[in-house]
Amino acid sequence: MSTIVEALREAVGADAVLDAAATAERASSYWDQSPMRAAALVRPRTTAEVAAVLKVCHARGQVVVTQGGLTGCVQGATTDQDSVVICMERMNSIEEIDLVGRTATVQAGVVLQKLQEAVRDKGMLFPIDLGARGSCTVGGNVATNAGGINVIRYGMMRSRVLGLEAVTADGTVISSMNRMLKNNAGYDLKQMFIGSEGTLGIVTRVIVRLEEAPVSRNSAMVALTSFEAVTGLLKRLQQALGGQLSAYEVMWGDYFREVTAPGFHRAPMDRHHPYYVMLEAEGANPTADAEQFTNVMGAALEEELVIDAVIPQSDTERTLLWDIRENFQPLYIRKPIFLYDVSLPIRDMEAYVIEVQARLKKRWPNSRCDVIGHIGDGNLHFFVTPGCEGENLHHQSDEDVYAPLQPIGGSISAEHGIGTEKRVHLGISRSPEEIELMRLLKRTLDPKAILNPGKIL
Amino acid sequence: MSTIVEALREAVGADAVLDAAATAERASSYWDQSPMRAAALVRPRTTAEVAAVLKVCHARGQVVVTQGGLTGCVQGATTDQDSVVICMERMNSIEEIDLVGRTATVQAGVVLQKLQEAVRDKGMLFPIDLGARGSCTVGGNVATNAGGINVIRYGMMRSRVLGLEAVTADGTVISSMNRMLKNNAGYDLKQMFIGSEGTLGIVTRVIVRLEEAPVSRNSAMVALTSFEAVTGLLKRLQQALGGQLSAYEVMWGDYFREVTAPGFHRAPMDRHHPYYVMLEAEGANPTADAEQFTNVMGAALEEELVIDAVIPQSDTERTLLWDIRENFQPLYIRKPIFLYDVSLPIRDMEAYVIEVQARLKKRWPNSRCDVIGHIGDGNLHFFVTPGCEGENLHHQSDEDVYAPLQPIGGSISAEHGIGTEKRVHLGISRSPEEIELMRLLKRTLDPKAILNPGKIL
Repeated sequence: MSTIVEALREAVGADAVLDAAATAERASSYWDQSPMRAAALVRPRTTAEVAAVLKVCHARGQVVVTQGGLTGCVQGATTDQDSVVICMERMNSIEEIDLVGRTATVQAGVVLQKLQEAVRDKGMLFPIDLGARGSCTVGGNVATNAGGINVIRYGMMRSRVLGLEAVTADGTVISSMNRMLKNNAGYDLKQMFIGSEGTLGIVTRVIVRLEEAPVSRNSAMVALTSFEAVTGLLKRLQQALGGQLSAYEVMWGDYFREVTAPGFHRAPMDRHHPYYVMLEAEGANPTADAEQFTNVMGAALEEELVIDAVIPQSDTERTLLWDIRENFQPLYIRKPIFLYDVSLPIRDMEAYVIEVQARLKKRWPNSRCDVIGHIGDGNLHFFVTPGCEGENLHHQSDEDVYAPLQPIGGSISAEHGIGTEKRVHLGISRSPEEIELMRLLKRTLDPKAILNPGKIL
Repeated sequence: MSTIVEALREAVGADAVLDAAATAERASSYWDQSPMRAAALVRPRTTAEVAAVLKVCHARGQVVVTQGGLTGCVQGATTDQDSVVICMERMNSIEEIDLVGRTATVQAGVVLQKLQEAVRDKGMLFPIDLGARGSCTVGGNVATNAGGINVIRYGMMRSRVLGLEAVTADGTVISSMNRMLKNNAGYDLKQMFIGSEGTLGIVTRVIVRLEEAPVSRNSAMVALTSFEAVTGLLKRLQQALGGQLSAYEVMWGDYFREVTAPGFHRAPMDRHHPYYVMLEAEGANPTADAEQFTNVMGAALEEELVIDAVIPQSDTERTLLWDIRENFQPLYIRKPIFLYDVSLPIRDMEAYVIEVQARLKKRWPNSRCDVIGHIGDGNLHFFVTPGCEGENLHHQSDEDVYAPLQPIGGSISAEHGIGTEKRVHLGISRSPEEIELMRLLKRTLDPKAILNPGKIL
């Protein structure tokens, strides 16, 4: 029997297949620069080539790991020396932008920022946006149902995908390249592939919805004295800005103080408030929008719902404010550091954060737990540092963060997915019946368990 | 062995089960007043009772048809004398409205309008809205992924459902009562049940997203001379109203003339234009919104993008305008009449409508084909009358409407679903691989094929 490298080269051409040695010249991921381990890495150019690769692998029971931009946070694309990697980097074509139907058709390997820029050049907006925009791929965004900073207004990736093409484990091409906002002709099969982290099929092409580009933008960073004020201001803005609110990013005070400590970001206001929010609204009527925004912010200050506010006067100032929220490298000086993305009802958030921090302090008196979040989306991010050495620290931290979620029906993963990292904790957020149904779907679509095995389930 | 009525009464109580004779005192559907045929009709009060019913039916291989408001247009809830009907009318509780988290938790049998009114009383909006609002149920809206008049801004039912509870064929309860905007902890199982028309499980409870109630509304009915102007105005409004556009309902001239003929609706403007549009925007800033709306409409009139416009001056006037679009009873004087809901890219719409009308005229010189649609959603509704008698008229009409969809990738069902009526045509919109995957899912979740058999597949 031929080797897997030989079989793949025969199927899709020698130029498309790297052997184990050549693969090892690549980094494991954006976060892990160690050499990537794999039996082979294939770089298909078309859906047909992906199908050809899967036919070869399916026949041999060969494990396949699909990779996009490798920026994921949950080890969802991790490989070992027996894996075949399908790397989507050459499937990077923006096939069409339809300005009337407001759609873009792209191959899965297109980098998110490339798509954002291409549609912006045509007066449109592709609103999925996250820190990894310069590296992550649209296919990866689909496979993980990416969220990001604009979900409050525009929804997650799932709500952007009108159609897609995917290849199932045996090499069957499921082409559901719908470009309509509405289609109820039978089951909406694309939903199965969105957010399934490469375990049910490989997404190769996507049709996404675009929006008209907004022409006004109003931003502010504000300080608040209580969590009640944080949710009160959110509701006020939702009412007064009529759906224009596009970002509402909350930073707990400790996070803000940490990233604005001397030598890091410059603090645009007093550093001793309990909460800070970076907020933004986008609209179509610059004069009226600015006036309404100013009025709402003025009233909030007057009523002391907000106790301080900075409104950027230029793009540069705006970027500096956003950096405080988006660029948290200062935190990564601490080692080890564990990143979490949980979701829970807003009404339970304040008590939940207090409980997690208390648990961590009890376990490790020198621990830190800094919190930021897209609270309008119910989504919090935690940065946990034990502040000590020892074994099993990550698992102990997981316990403290996840255990209080179960009684309030929270999720152990808002937007990062499950991957390998959270697999053992899935039962905290999902019932035995749900997990059994997931397993049934996995067995049905991938009976030989070759697609990204060990991830999610 | 006990009869099915006896077995069901034992499982959920005598008061919950009607026998065949009692069931026949009910109408078959909203559209068909003939007696409903069934072996039994069960009216459960809880998810547990639905599960108990399904356990009985699964053990016996008993066919089950679930019914909501019976307003569907594709015979998706049709029964025969061997069916057990699960009627959701007693599962009509609005369990909770969360004003901070902006969710409502309801049982599946809640009538849509009841939910709309309950949240409106609390200053919120549940934006799914359609003509059948007074009869259709939220569970039915989920099972068919309902659309309606506000999809352009708020999306279909699928985008409103945060969590749901469903019972699968063997009586297993899949409780995915998520209330967060974001949750990526494993596969998003609820997606399978949404839009599957009762064939994969029975939806019993739902958590839906609410919006803050808008405080401004601006409406207009306008006349246009070309389809290019119709799409041009749509794009203009999307740009200038910054996502506030909530309805853009197009009526082809023949439809408008028909429903405003003497004795029917009063025509608010000249009846001889090629296209009419009912449009509406919702916002949060009454003064600024009205000014922007007036400016945009004024500019459109000045440039002759729009050639006539009526802006309602009261709620009564607004309702009279909406009646022209929503109350098309005048058409139903014609017999037979066949209703279609197709979707297709906007850029293909004008040519498609011309082709369908030409095909129908060629087949039946006295035929009529009137067209309205949510064109921003890619969704057209056709009313076809052959204008003659004969056999097989419906099927012939189907051919003329559906055949031209295939080359442009259109869908035979934008929002009504497939039911029994469109089953034989599914292959026009979906590939053999897609249909095979649908069958595989159906066999996997319902191996005895007891759930709404003969629908969709």
